Amino acid sequence: MTMATVNNGVNVQALLDAREALKGAPEATQFTWRASCKWQTGTYSKTTLRGFFGLGQEQQHKTETSFEADHPEIFAAEDRGITPIEYVLVGLAGCLTAGVAAVAQNRGIQLRSVESKLEGKMDIRGILGMDSDVRMGYDDIKVTFKIDADASKKDIEAIVAQSQKRSAVYDVITNPVNVTVEVL
Amino acid sequence: MTMATVNNGVNVQALLDAREALKGAPEATQFTWRASCKWQTGTYSKTTLRGFFGLGQEQQHKTETSFEADHPEIFAAEDRGITPIEYVLVGLAGCLTAGVAAVAQNRGIQLRSVESKLEGKMDIRGILGMDSDVRMGYDDIKVTFKIDADASKKDIEAIVAQSQKRSAVYDVITNPVNVTVEVL
Repeated sequence: MTMATVNNGVNVQALLDAREALKGAPEATQFTWRASCKWQTGTYSKTTLRGFFGLGQEQQHKTETSFEADHPEIFAAEDRGITPIEYVLVGLAGCLTAGVAAVAQNRGIQLRSVESKLEGKMDIRGILGMDSDVRMGYDDIKVTFKIDADASKKDIEAIVAQSQKRSAVYDVITNPVNVTVEVL
Repeated sequence: MTMATVNNGVNVQALLDAREALKGAPEATQFTWRASCKWQTGTYSKTTLRGFFGLGQEQQHKTETSFEADHPEIFAAEDRGITPIEYVLVGLAGCLTAGVAAVAQNRGIQLRSVESKLEGKMDIRGILGMDSDVRMGYDDIKVTFKIDADASKKDIEAIVAQSQKRSAVYDVITNPVNVTVEVL
């Protein structure tokens, strides 16, 4: 066994301990993630994140972070940030990658590198209102991992499959989520 | 009519012209958005975006942009970026806000400010593997807009509803998307 020497930088023991501790405190597992957005001009906006709620109380990220979104020049906009739909790929990439590291750690497999390419296909006839049968968002997303690790191809595929199964962002994209939009 | 003086910074005429031009070129409306992710350590990753495909050829954002994702300290991680699931809120905020500006422009309504708050609720028993009946991602997302514009409450609500209807990210979150994950 080489498990003791495996270090992917994920504190799996702390997560397993948390799971035990949370068994007696169901309200502590209810999280609320938050963001605030301000329109700048045109299709350009800035979204800021800092606080969230979890473990029964208000929490904060170490720093406040802001993200810019815009449309590209080929949509007659000024490309002051990536498009909103590309942020979905950013979230999916980060979620699956964190999961790969955590699952590998839990299985005693040392990772050397984890890279992925994501491609999301969409037909813009939807958002342009050209054809009501065409959906607005992605038809299809493809994620391709290239992983260098102390494990067989089969074990690596099993790690990726487990990460996918436990991924919050993968779930949100592949299954419907209830979204309510209100105007104050 | 005051439509000529309305300027929300969205070139609606260019979009209407594009719609006409694209009617004869169905292959030009097929877009592929792309991202590349590199694992750093633990749950920390960096995702980079630059090129995409659309209007029948390779396109590029003006600049390459990278985004960091991590887990927060309360999950025994180092909080070197927002969590992947928060990027979903960033995308939704940017998409609905750009839509509000575009729809208002098209309807001749001057916007003065558009702000929104987003809240995504999830029960972390899912991702921690504590209860297989609990989903991994958001149960529910709430978006609240506060809009100052030269329009009635009813007209503002109609703008937001139309933005929601045409939003790529709203579609991806509220409806299932096919995602394929492969290992090279």
